[in-house]
Amino acid sequence: MSTRHVPVVERIFRANEGVAAEVRALCRQHQVALVNIMASPGAGKTTFLLATAHRLADRVRIGVIEGDVASSVDSDRVRAEGFPAVQINTGGGCHLDARQVRGALDELDLDALDLILVENVGNLVCPVGFDLGETLRIALSSVPEGWDKPIKYPAIFERVDAVVLNKIDLLPYLPFDEPQFRRLVAGLNPHAPILSVSSTDGSGMDEWTTWLGDQLPK
Amino acid sequence: MSTRHVPVVERIFRANEGVAAEVRALCRQHQVALVNIMASPGAGKTTFLLATAHRLADRVRIGVIEGDVASSVDSDRVRAEGFPAVQINTGGGCHLDARQVRGALDELDLDALDLILVENVGNLVCPVGFDLGETLRIALSSVPEGWDKPIKYPAIFERVDAVVLNKIDLLPYLPFDEPQFRRLVAGLNPHAPILSVSSTDGSGMDEWTTWLGDQLPK
Repeated sequence: MSTRHVPVVERIFRANEGVAAEVRALCRQHQVALVNIMASPGAGKTTFLLATAHRLADRVRIGVIEGDVASSVDSDRVRAEGFPAVQINTGGGCHLDARQVRGALDELDLDALDLILVENVGNLVCPVGFDLGETLRIALSSVPEGWDKPIKYPAIFERVDAVVLNKIDLLPYLPFDEPQFRRLVAGLNPHAPILSVSSTDGSGMDEWTTWLGDQLPK
Repeated sequence: MSTRHVPVVERIFRANEGVAAEVRALCRQHQVALVNIMASPGAGKTTFLLATAHRLADRVRIGVIEGDVASSVDSDRVRAEGFPAVQINTGGGCHLDARQVRGALDELDLDALDLILVENVGNLVCPVGFDLGETLRIALSSVPEGWDKPIKYPAIFERVDAVVLNKIDLLPYLPFDEPQFRRLVAGLNPHAPILSVSSTDGSGMDEWTTWLGDQLPK
C-alpha cells in the first residue's frame, strides 16, 4: 500500500477495528484466548502450532484457525492430529482480517475451547496492520531466514507480545547470529520475551508453552 | 486486499500498468534487461543476486535495485561488492510498484548497463500482482521453506519465467521433497524452468547464469 491510498486504507482499518472489537468481546464472553501467529512463508508455523497444541492438550482445550491464500492442507493436517480446525482461504489476500476470523468463530464450539491458535497468512509485512481481536500476537521468525529480519521488517517485531525464534536445530549449519538477532528485537520491542525453539526436536518448547500458559485467563 | 475493495484495486493496477509500460520502453531504448526477483523474506535473495552478478560480471554490465520495507543494508552490501545499486524503501508497503522502479532508473546510468537485477520486497503474495515493466520475473524459493509452498502461494509460481530453488546445500538436514516440489511447480507453470542452486556453495549457479544469459538481448 502506498501513501497515495491512505484515505481508503484508513476506512478499511476502521471497519476492521469494529469487527475486531466484536471478536474480542465474544472471546471474553466465552473465556477463550485467541493467539495470532504471524511469520514468513515457510517459517514453520503449522508445525510450531501443532507442537504447541500437543504440549498444552492435557490441560487446555485447543482449537485452530488456519489462514492461507489457497488450499486446506494445513487445516486437514491439524484435524488429522485431533484438533478442531477451520480453514480461511483469502483467495489472493495477503493477511487475515477480523471479519474472516469472526466468521471462523461461528464454526467452532467456543464453550468447548480455552485457546484458539490462529495461523495468519505467511507474510512479514501485511498481517501486522490488521487487528483480529486477538488476545496475544506472536511473531515467529526462523533461523534460515537470517538474523537481520528485524532490520528489514521492523513493524512485526515491534507490535507483538512475544517473539519466537524457530528451527534452532539448524543453527550448526547456518551463519545465524543469535545474540545480534536478540539485540535487534530488544531494540524494537524491549518488553517482548524472545523464546528460541525447535518445533521438530522440541528444544525450548517447554519454556514457550509455560510462558503461553501463564498468559491464558485463569 | 479483500474483494470488497476491487474497484480501488483495479484503479491502482491500471495506474501501475501505465508506468510499467514506460519502464519497459525505457529499458528497450537503452537495451537493458530488468529482472524482477520475488521471494519470501529470508529466501536468500541478496546473496543469490550477488552470486549471480559476480558470475556474469565479466561479460554483462550489472546494476541493482533493492526493495525493502526499511533500511539500506542490502544496497550498501551490493555497492560494497562493486555494483551500482539504488535502494527503494517502501515505508511499510508490501511490494514494489512500477512508479518506484521508474524513479530508481533515474539514478542509474542506463547506457552503462546491460542487466538490472531488482530485489522485490520479501513477500510471496503481493509482489506478483504488480508489473514493474520487467523483462523477466523470477520466483526464488528456498529449501527451508518447505516443498509445499506452491500449494499455498500458487500465483507467484504460475506467473514467472523461471523458478529458482535456493539453499540446496541444506537438503541433507531437512525433509524437503524436491521431486514433489518440481511436480507442483510444473503443474502450475509447465513452461518455467526450475533451477536448483546454492548461492553459498555455488551448486547449480552455472546452469542458472547460463539460462539467464541466454534470455538477455544479444
